[in-house]
Amino acid sequence: MRLKNIKGAKERIGESSYLIKDPFALKGKYKTIFKNNNPIHLEIGTGKGDFLIEMALKYPDINFVGIERYDSVILRAIEKVDKLDISNIYFIREDANLIEKIFDHEIEKIYLNFSDPWPKARHAKRRLTSPVFLKYYDSIFKRGKFIQMKTDNKDLFEYSLVSLSEYGYTIKEVNLNLYENMVEDNVATEYETKFVNMGKRIYRGVFIKD
Amino acid sequence: MRLKNIKGAKERIGESSYLIKDPFALKGKYKTIFKNNNPIHLEIGTGKGDFLIEMALKYPDINFVGIERYDSVILRAIEKVDKLDISNIYFIREDANLIEKIFDHEIEKIYLNFSDPWPKARHAKRRLTSPVFLKYYDSIFKRGKFIQMKTDNKDLFEYSLVSLSEYGYTIKEVNLNLYENMVEDNVATEYETKFVNMGKRIYRGVFIKD
Repeated sequence: MRLKNIKGAKERIGESSYLIKDPFALKGKYKTIFKNNNPIHLEIGTGKGDFLIEMALKYPDINFVGIERYDSVILRAIEKVDKLDISNIYFIREDANLIEKIFDHEIEKIYLNFSDPWPKARHAKRRLTSPVFLKYYDSIFKRGKFIQMKTDNKDLFEYSLVSLSEYGYTIKEVNLNLYENMVEDNVATEYETKFVNMGKRIYRGVFIKD
Repeated sequence: MRLKNIKGAKERIGESSYLIKDPFALKGKYKTIFKNNNPIHLEIGTGKGDFLIEMALKYPDINFVGIERYDSVILRAIEKVDKLDISNIYFIREDANLIEKIFDHEIEKIYLNFSDPWPKARHAKRRLTSPVFLKYYDSIFKRGKFIQMKTDNKDLFEYSLVSLSEYGYTIKEVNLNLYENMVEDNVATEYETKFVNMGKRIYRGVFIKD
């Protein structure tokens, strides 16, 4: 997600207790910041945080971490969560391609919501469902692997179905027009609501691997 | 596919040299009717035959068999092929659920085009991509398994992606709106052309398994 640069964003997010200042130092030890052994779910490209904050409020027995590369974007998530008093959510301001250096076999589910489609073929490796990233995820998942993905981008979803399947993931659920056959527990992102209102289809998939 | 019953259809198709009269007797010996060792591809639910006949004309070095349960439907395919003089196509008038008794490890590719979606959950087993049928296919595929599927039915395609994936198939190609990003070698069925003209999306998948 891109957003106009907001002056002072870096400093303002740094003041929040919901931002993890040195994520690399916590590698393999994320349960210590949550002070419990509950499952940890990760959203990569957490944007303005609507999805993750609603998930954290809905599922108090699950710990949530959101990673986002842009100061000016994650600032919006931080501003929202700063008004709340919850102990099961943290944010990381970092590039997702460093994820191997941030987590070590401690994540139970990954959420990819409206990720950058990187439409050009020469940028395919940057897609969050490319084999490059799937290999990173191998080293951050605790035991079984679980990825839930939503996107409005048909080409990215097609690419992801093939990429995940070829990497050995099994498709557990797939929705090729989510708002026509809505799943019970859907939590919408800020992008999602906007796209649905524009009449766009939302694609959703749940993928698992042993 | 359903069609108004045509009087005398059974007799008329029986007169064609393109109809295999006793498919069960040929089990494991289909190459003998083609008199060569070329790969044999099978279309299940071949309807009025447009797809298979065009494929047979386009690929003379591949042998094609089409199976269809309705006399009055397969009659249309027989009428078309009777006007031609080709040696790489045959039709079978039989129910697909007897397929295990018709072929024995001799099919290289299966095509499922606009199959009956059997929308009711209690009829899921009748879908040509249900585990029941996938098990039948195991015994008719020669070595590697290859299924190419096209449908306009979103729910059937969703079901098939999950069913094939859970059965161990890998998605090699997927198109969630075929006529937006057309593949080079597409051969349209009679249904397909009609549905596209109605503005419907066509879904396409290629699935393989060792």
